[in-house]
Amino acid sequence: MQAARLNEYTHDMTDALEIEEIDRPSAQSPDDVIVEIEGAGWCQTDNHIIEGQWVEYVPQELPMTLGHENAGIVAEVGSDVTLVEEGDPVICHPVQTCGTCRPCRLGEDMYCENDAFNGLTTDGGFAEYLHTSERAVIPLPDGVDPTDIAPHADAGITAYHAAKKAVAELNPGDTCVVIGIGGLGHIGLQCIDAMSAADIVAVDLKDKALELADDLGAHHTINSSEAEVPEVIANLTDDVGAQQILDFVGADETTAYGPDIAAAGGDHHVIGYGGHVHEPCQAFVAGELSFRGNIVGKYTELQELVSLVDRGDVHLHTERYGLDEVNDVAEKLEHREIEGRAVIVP
Amino acid sequence: MQAARLNEYTHDMTDALEIEEIDRPSAQSPDDVIVEIEGAGWCQTDNHIIEGQWVEYVPQELPMTLGHENAGIVAEVGSDVTLVEEGDPVICHPVQTCGTCRPCRLGEDMYCENDAFNGLTTDGGFAEYLHTSERAVIPLPDGVDPTDIAPHADAGITAYHAAKKAVAELNPGDTCVVIGIGGLGHIGLQCIDAMSAADIVAVDLKDKALELADDLGAHHTINSSEAEVPEVIANLTDDVGAQQILDFVGADETTAYGPDIAAAGGDHHVIGYGGHVHEPCQAFVAGELSFRGNIVGKYTELQELVSLVDRGDVHLHTERYGLDEVNDVAEKLEHREIEGRAVIVP
Amino acid sequence: MQAARLNEYTHDMTDALEIEEIDRPSAQSPDDVIVEIEGAGWCQTDNHIIEGQWVEYVPQELPMTLGHENAGIVAEVGSDVTLVEEGDPVICHPVQTCGTCRPCRLGEDMYCENDAFNGLTTDGGFAEYLHTSERAVIPLPDGVDPTDIAPHADAGITAYHAAKKAVAELNPGDTCVVIGIGGLGHIGLQCIDAMSAADIVAVDLKDKALELADDLGAHHTINSSEAEVPEVIANLTDDVGAQQILDFVGADETTAYGPDIAAAGGDHHVIGYGGHVHEPCQAFVAGELSFRGNIVGKYTELQELVSLVDRGDVHLHTERYGLDEVNDVAEKLEHREIEGRAVIVP
Amino acid sequence: MQAARLNEYTHDMTDALEIEEIDRPSAQSPDDVIVEIEGAGWCQTDNHIIEGQWVEYVPQELPMTLGHENAGIVAEVGSDVTLVEEGDPVICHPVQTCGTCRPCRLGEDMYCENDAFNGLTTDGGFAEYLHTSERAVIPLPDGVDPTDIAPHADAGITAYHAAKKAVAELNPGDTCVVIGIGGLGHIGLQCIDAMSAADIVAVDLKDKALELADDLGAHHTINSSEAEVPEVIANLTDDVGAQQILDFVGADETTAYGPDIAAAGGDHHVIGYGGHVHEPCQAFVAGELSFRGNIVGKYTELQELVSLVDRGDVHLHTERYGLDEVNDVAEKLEHREIEGRAVIVP
Repeated sequence: MQAARLNEYTHDMTDALEIEEIDRPSAQSPDDVIVEIEGAGWCQTDNHIIEGQWVEYVPQELPMTLGHENAGIVAEVGSDVTLVEEGDPVICHPVQTCGTCRPCRLGEDMYCENDAFNGLTTDGGFAEYLHTSERAVIPLPDGVDPTDIAPHADAGITAYHAAKKAVAELNPGDTCVVIGIGGLGHIGLQCIDAMSAADIVAVDLKDKALELADDLGAHHTINSSEAEVPEVIANLTDDVGAQQILDFVGADETTAYGPDIAAAGGDHHVIGYGGHVHEPCQAFVAGELSFRGNIVGKYTELQELVSLVDRGDVHLHTERYGLDEVNDVAEKLEHREIEGRAVIVP
Repeated sequence: MQAARLNEYTHDMTDALEIEEIDRPSAQSPDDVIVEIEGAGWCQTDNHIIEGQWVEYVPQELPMTLGHENAGIVAEVGSDVTLVEEGDPVICHPVQTCGTCRPCRLGEDMYCENDAFNGLTTDGGFAEYLHTSERAVIPLPDGVDPTDIAPHADAGITAYHAAKKAVAELNPGDTCVVIGIGGLGHIGLQCIDAMSAADIVAVDLKDKALELADDLGAHHTINSSEAEVPEVIANLTDDVGAQQILDFVGADETTAYGPDIAAAGGDHHVIGYGGHVHEPCQAFVAGELSFRGNIVGKYTELQELVSLVDRGDVHLHTERYGLDEVNDVAEKLEHREIEGRAVIVP
Repeated sequence: MQAARLNEYTHDMTDALEIEEIDRPSAQSPDDVIVEIEGAGWCQTDNHIIEGQWVEYVPQELPMTLGHENAGIVAEVGSDVTLVEEGDPVICHPVQTCGTCRPCRLGEDMYCENDAFNGLTTDGGFAEYLHTSERAVIPLPDGVDPTDIAPHADAGITAYHAAKKAVAELNPGDTCVVIGIGGLGHIGLQCIDAMSAADIVAVDLKDKALELADDLGAHHTINSSEAEVPEVIANLTDDVGAQQILDFVGADETTAYGPDIAAAGGDHHVIGYGGHVHEPCQAFVAGELSFRGNIVGKYTELQELVSLVDRGDVHLHTERYGLDEVNDVAEKLEHREIEGRAVIVP
Repeated sequence: MQAARLNEYTHDMTDALEIEEIDRPSAQSPDDVIVEIEGAGWCQTDNHIIEGQWVEYVPQELPMTLGHENAGIVAEVGSDVTLVEEGDPVICHPVQTCGTCRPCRLGEDMYCENDAFNGLTTDGGFAEYLHTSERAVIPLPDGVDPTDIAPHADAGITAYHAAKKAVAELNPGDTCVVIGIGGLGHIGLQCIDAMSAADIVAVDLKDKALELADDLGAHHTINSSEAEVPEVIANLTDDVGAQQILDFVGADETTAYGPDIAAAGGDHHVIGYGGHVHEPCQAFVAGELSFRGNIVGKYTELQELVSLVDRGDVHLHTERYGLDEVNDVAEKLEHREIEGRAVIVP
């Protein structure tokens, strides 16, 4: 089968991945599931992986097929699999977990001590078939198209995971700032809207992104290239500040907003990760501010997000590309030329 | 009456405060309470105030009597006060709150929109008498000495507040790292021990502090000037890391431990505030790490801490000084020569 | 001024209250607020009070003016009041709290140890003026009509309080059953819808109530006089059951649904209180079911509910009556002839 | 091998179970684990099963080997098992879970949709060997004796599960009432003591049980055959009541305490299940009281309890009996003649 593979780290996206012919995977252990890929979302993290930015944090061996936002049709199952059968449409949680370590037993899939992460530590879904396991697939409801939903496998649940943590702290009348209305941000904004009655303030550099935010339910929008964000937030909130901040950019400039726009006891959720957090400890102490890291969502959170999609609460903006266009996509994303989310259709 | 007052900001602690004769306060409004001070704890924050470090964060007018860790005997009450009467021993929450703003109604005293903070934004307790209000005093149980308990009014509840947040996340078998076994740290450690069944690892540069930690219930101690803290934590926790970290130092070196010693999803609580947090966003994302700021505890938390003291779960190490010795105390603290907590007895 | 007063307990609603001329209240203490009533909701609890059903639970002296769902215009304030001034439109939390007991300091207004409850333990708002206090009034945003919003002062926040507890346990894809779409139920349903992405199943005996539920956002409706409720819930939830149940009726028949329709670990919230809970302990243990009592909401919850009303998320169905029609209203409610909520306009 | 089996339901405990020779189980599927039993606790639930009391709640086919509190040495493992190997000492969680249903993915083992419960729906551990699975065994730390710890597999984690829910609501200075200091109650009391700083009040009919409670950390004891429990609790708590109540008896008399001894917003946890809860809905509403059912604890909670045992925080009072004495044990328990917990040693 064909697969888009990373052979060496590079900062040149124009020939980052190579399309190669490799063996089609097959079910070896009783829990294996082989999925024929109908769609595989391209993620900013793919660019980071190509640049070697993840080497320090996870074990990674090249060559490797990238692609961690996968959905498709079950092609083959191991002997013990009961959750799905051949022909079922599924979305694939990006992490294949052991199911027996303590984090798995707590439902914390992302903390699994024996995990394999599609397209990050093991072969992913920029290929015709994906090798995964029963604990990593979720059957799709009737009427949900695998190609359309694929990016939710990572972009979606990462945004959902952060949104769910924020929602737990948001009361009606509170303010939630969403920074960066891109691939993840436009999902996170819809999740906040579906699950809370907070006022949503969208912040972006591009008017087009802010128009999208407005369409999707934002109550206010701020173009941060034109307005002083802290001043606008102060006005909107009677100087109270925002109880929750979802930072889908994670640049030095956006994390710096935290102390200036957060309400007392507020949280600045770090989801994007291009830059740094650099603050004096006193900035944490004075207003009891937290910077909270955010990881990919849990398996059960992907189930919940599928429910949100199924009930029409979350819409995904996608563009489709062929497997041979992966490097174009990588290049375009580098230049912020992708609207919504690119989906590779092998 | 005599009071130790700050007339101008300085970095020279040897004549930081001046002992002056000022008017004794009296009850003017129906909620006023006048307390004859039996003990007023000296806090690292007093040094920070003297240096002008708080000017940026709160409104502050000089001259001002410092002292925010106060306890004593009620000397006079306003006409509507029912909670206490003349002669009652009380500990004073450092913040006088309005009781009607939304944070007050939520029980979040520290977020009060109309507060006065003893010794920070209004006259404090390094004086014979303190002017405060009914909402800021807590009657002491029989047998609890005001002089002994005074430092709990800020050091105590700040440590307790952080400990309570950590305890909510700690299960038996988990590990809690306590960094800095000084004035606050030795209280926080005891609170963790009283309210959880986590394993406590104490970290400090001084063996004497670690001996104290050991006496107070630490399960392991690490001298960070001698051992590699991350390596020791990894060994103690089978490479899982610490679920909760209480950083009572807040120096650049101690906040840097966070990503290396935290378990997945762990929290690094920033309580001390000498230094900075400086981390790439990816360090937050990779292990879903949070840096959580910590403020002084609530009024109800001071009630809870008084209960802990009353039942013998938390012991405070104090040394007593006269009002005329305040500058010696400031100087000693600057050179880390105070063991436990200094209490000024006017 | 005129007031509708209860002189003795009775089961005959036709002359339950008497319209009498009594002194207009005035501000005596510095925290007092006098409100000219624009609307006072009539509540099922008023019928219960008239029947003497609350004597066992609270101190109550007759004669007393009933009415605990009040809104109007501030007519006079005490010397220390800063939150509102003469002429401000306000909604009145039904409980006047002390602000100094531990429950008050925790934000738990309903557990106040020194409270007065309008129309239950002190004179209420079926009168031209109400005597209340600063801690019990909430200014209304522009455009919110006091008469329209009055029933939220008790019906609204009681429903909101229960809904908020349920929402904390509801994930997208979960099911919430709302039993009884009357005065409180139709509010609770809208709160669940505004703050969660759960599927809402409305249960009532009357088709008209179910039509209202449908209009307000219910995803399914069940007429319990025609269908087997447990069977329908089982079908709707793939035999999983409902994670949360809001029982606004509280009759023997409705509490009996709990063990049959709750998902494992589910909660049956008891809000209405006509009947009993009668279950073997094994029914609690087998599915880890809880029956959770529900009280009137907190002051801050009334603020949150006002926000929901202000943003258009919660609509109230009301009918207006004059002060001289109170006994007609009592009688009609007894026979379930009130649609939505009756508001007395003195 | 020998096994104690139930062939038909009976109320006569003297010949409830029969010792029979049946096939020794062996590992069939890749996740199977066979445990040589070193100890199997006898539980009040075994008496309930013998009486047929569980037929209504779970699928149950006779004949069946009882015994759900098992610990021993791994004798054989399936091909995919990595958590344990032959010779490892283990404690067995009573429920064998599927690991793929949504409750399993949430960590809610007890809500597994495809579970088998040792000695309740499948053969248990009153036998020489037990057939279980990798997801149901927990390796024991060095120095923990399987025979001694066996009852924690159900009695222990059931008590721990309830205690953990109570601890989440208990602050220093709060009161926790523990009703019934028997097999479960004496464990629950120790868990509360280890994980909170609440005042513990033990209630029992027997002085000997109360002496045990006193030894294990109770701050007050009440003999309910001699004193008026509500009156004593009122005195001990300044009329506030107990924030949390753990009812390990679950008789009509003990559940009736709830409304009289609970603080506002308190919880009465139903753990024992001999009787009923029978209360007017108004008793739930007036003080916002909850009756919360309690089920066996989760797998991760058993890990946590093993940590508590390992660190010396929880001691178990056991008596050992041979497999041929099972009916004596059943009979003795019926007459409350077992002190602590009986452990069958096959």
